[in-house]
Amino acid sequence: MTSEVSAALTEVDHVVGYAPYIDRVPQRAGLQRHASGNTVELDRARLALDLARAGERVAVVSGGDAGVFGMASAVFEAAEDLAYADVAVRVLPGLSAVQAVAARAGAPIGADFAVVSLSDRLKPWPVVEQRLHAIAEADLVLAIYNPASRSRTQQIVDTQKLLLEHRAPDTVVVIGRDVGRAEESLLVTTLAELDPDSIDMKCLLIIGASSTRRTRSGQVWTPRFVE
Amino acid sequence: MTSEVSAALTEVDHVVGYAPYIDRVPQRAGLQRHASGNTVELDRARLALDLARAGERVAVVSGGDAGVFGMASAVFEAAEDLAYADVAVRVLPGLSAVQAVAARAGAPIGADFAVVSLSDRLKPWPVVEQRLHAIAEADLVLAIYNPASRSRTQQIVDTQKLLLEHRAPDTVVVIGRDVGRAEESLLVTTLAELDPDSIDMKCLLIIGASSTRRTRSGQVWTPRFVE
Repeated sequence: MTSEVSAALTEVDHVVGYAPYIDRVPQRAGLQRHASGNTVELDRARLALDLARAGERVAVVSGGDAGVFGMASAVFEAAEDLAYADVAVRVLPGLSAVQAVAARAGAPIGADFAVVSLSDRLKPWPVVEQRLHAIAEADLVLAIYNPASRSRTQQIVDTQKLLLEHRAPDTVVVIGRDVGRAEESLLVTTLAELDPDSIDMKCLLIIGASSTRRTRSGQVWTPRFVE
Repeated sequence: MTSEVSAALTEVDHVVGYAPYIDRVPQRAGLQRHASGNTVELDRARLALDLARAGERVAVVSGGDAGVFGMASAVFEAAEDLAYADVAVRVLPGLSAVQAVAARAGAPIGADFAVVSLSDRLKPWPVVEQRLHAIAEADLVLAIYNPASRSRTQQIVDTQKLLLEHRAPDTVVVIGRDVGRAEESLLVTTLAELDPDSIDMKCLLIIGASSTRRTRSGQVWTPRFVE
């Protein structure tokens, strides 16, 4: 958490967010906490906007960076409703999951990269596939958010197959799980050896470019240069 | 700066980096500062590794996130030399320039996005062009690092032309300059109206996807969904 975010959290009347993120906000007298379940982003955004419209100061919290597959877009989406025309929205950046995983691994996103969510909850799967083909053909490092969920396990299987059409089997893959939390773990493997059954919603994947490599001690980095 | 980075900076004997970033490190007794010029990343990395090999504790500092077009990759590149086999390298993440600009603008990278450096100092320009075509065809939001320098002004001209082959003239463009510093500024314009002459090395650009839009108050966001 940045000092800018810590300071903002001392100034609000309400925090709104997915329960596990609300739990990380320090409690204090006068702060009302509104924890909600997963996948109800718009409801959560509307609750925050309703409170703000009534004159309250509200912080909507996300894990990582709210601007990177976090709540920021959902708040702007809900705020398109003219009822919220007078509500001021300000976004404070945070460390995104892709940066946290990258730093733990070394410097895998040290060159041109792309960040894609594999969830087809908000976009058609063919759009995701087209993007993956384009990214692989352009030899960008690829960070994958939302690789799987309990009910959504086919996407990472299909993604591995698709990427192997473009990338070598020994392409370096980093799997970060719960990074930034006490139970964090990191696995470095290859595109061919990636086990889709081991991937769930707590994972973030970084698929290397063709130049991504491992050091003798197992750290992963992508050269800045392209030969 | 995160608390993790602040803590690390109190524990080292040396800081090494580009002069403007060294200037931001709080001074204290016993801390030796090694400021260097721009574009000498490998020399700087070797200096840090030489100090570390001699038993000193060294921090190499970057602006933004060292892992995103910062010094992390350069340090791993220099550390490939077997002379540095015993030096341990650890990367601490920071807020990247793309996140800082995105947050100031609203939520422009709230959906799938790519991050590309326009510099052809370390990769052939045709590689950059191929990547820009792929990213534009896949309708990803595009963040551009190093859009221009004093001697390198043609790339942003060519990029604007190239992107207009794929994207509508009214595609939203965010230009952040010196974001995160006292003199920061932000301009929201369109792909057709973007003035290449106004772009220099202090700028970071975010080119919207087709869905990227402005709010009534001028904030920029990209919907999470694709219709």
